[in-house]
Amino acid sequence: MNLQLYSYFRSSASWRVRAALALKGLPCDYQAVHLVKGEQLGHQGLGPAQLLPALWADGQRITQSLAILEFLEETQPQPPLLPAEPLARAYVRSLALDIACEIHPLNNLRVLKYLKNELGVAEEAKNAWYRHWVEQGLATVNARLLSEGRMGRFCLGDQPGLADCVLVPQVFNAQRFEARIGHLEAVMRVFEACMALPAFADTHPSRVPDAE
Amino acid sequence: MNLQLYSYFRSSASWRVRAALALKGLPCDYQAVHLVKGEQLGHQGLGPAQLLPALWADGQRITQSLAILEFLEETQPQPPLLPAEPLARAYVRSLALDIACEIHPLNNLRVLKYLKNELGVAEEAKNAWYRHWVEQGLATVNARLLSEGRMGRFCLGDQPGLADCVLVPQVFNAQRFEARIGHLEAVMRVFEACMALPAFADTHPSRVPDAE
Repeated sequence: MNLQLYSYFRSSASWRVRAALALKGLPCDYQAVHLVKGEQLGHQGLGPAQLLPALWADGQRITQSLAILEFLEETQPQPPLLPAEPLARAYVRSLALDIACEIHPLNNLRVLKYLKNELGVAEEAKNAWYRHWVEQGLATVNARLLSEGRMGRFCLGDQPGLADCVLVPQVFNAQRFEARIGHLEAVMRVFEACMALPAFADTHPSRVPDAE
Repeated sequence: MNLQLYSYFRSSASWRVRAALALKGLPCDYQAVHLVKGEQLGHQGLGPAQLLPALWADGQRITQSLAILEFLEETQPQPPLLPAEPLARAYVRSLALDIACEIHPLNNLRVLKYLKNELGVAEEAKNAWYRHWVEQGLATVNARLLSEGRMGRFCLGDQPGLADCVLVPQVFNAQRFEARIGHLEAVMRVFEACMALPAFADTHPSRVPDAE
């Protein structure tokens, strides 16, 4: 499969896909799109949403990072990012969605811009908003990891998977904004275990072609 | 399978699951949780996130509406909510995520409360925020429906599926907040086609046990 990934070094949704591709050992052609410069606007590679990431697979565009991860899982099943059993799959997907739906959308660049430019929210209040959602959301993830009995070295057992691909970039973002998450021991343990793997370390924002 | 659904009549994420259960002909025990009264806080049925919906399947809790829909699809495959082919599955999932990640999280109750109580945003500016994200987000969905060549009477062909379960409640919300979406002809056509089906009409917020 011929893969092209449209990505931005600091886009956490892009990092989810970079990590999944690396876990599966799939090489891709890296196409940088500079979000802060607005290169996504009207970009032909991205489609109507003008959001990152987008993956082109044999000339077909796929958008939305979680849909891309499911597509990779269905077309390149080894090594698996999801377990076989439906309840365990639901656990992994719901952890990923706890981050992708409850934290990330509130903290992405276009939302922070709206707070500042349209609502006149001051810098400190904007940063408090950022920290509020990520601290609350990751506390939920931490409580679930500790209480649902499926965690191992990673979110599910001892193999990294779909939820880990979503957790790691969110923790990176949280640290960048100095959110208080150091006490979330399960989340931090999974993060450290992932960052010890080349699939996460080599796809870190500081290691991709458009790193600044 | 013994199913219990924790839901609130106006929760659009809950309606996604109500519609999917109805499309698959699965009866469930309806458990109302009053979000505005704060009944979700500390609720034993919901788990650490304290968000709706939650589905209990044979005594096991599943959270996050999209994870619930995937679980139902995997355990009760007929009639299917997803097509068989991976690229078509990615299309359906990414449409659902265009709504579930880019619109809904910005407009749910806890976020609107934060805007009002923590940031002091006035009522009219709060409503403009609401309309902004839903109008922009549904315009993206509309453009995709029209340009990607997979739409029929529903988001994918002539059978209702996972994306329709997510689209319908969002359109309902948009109308409630008087967002300008009437010109989004593909979105509105799908919405009308869905609302003509008992699976959507009978699970409408005005038709569930806790309707007000």
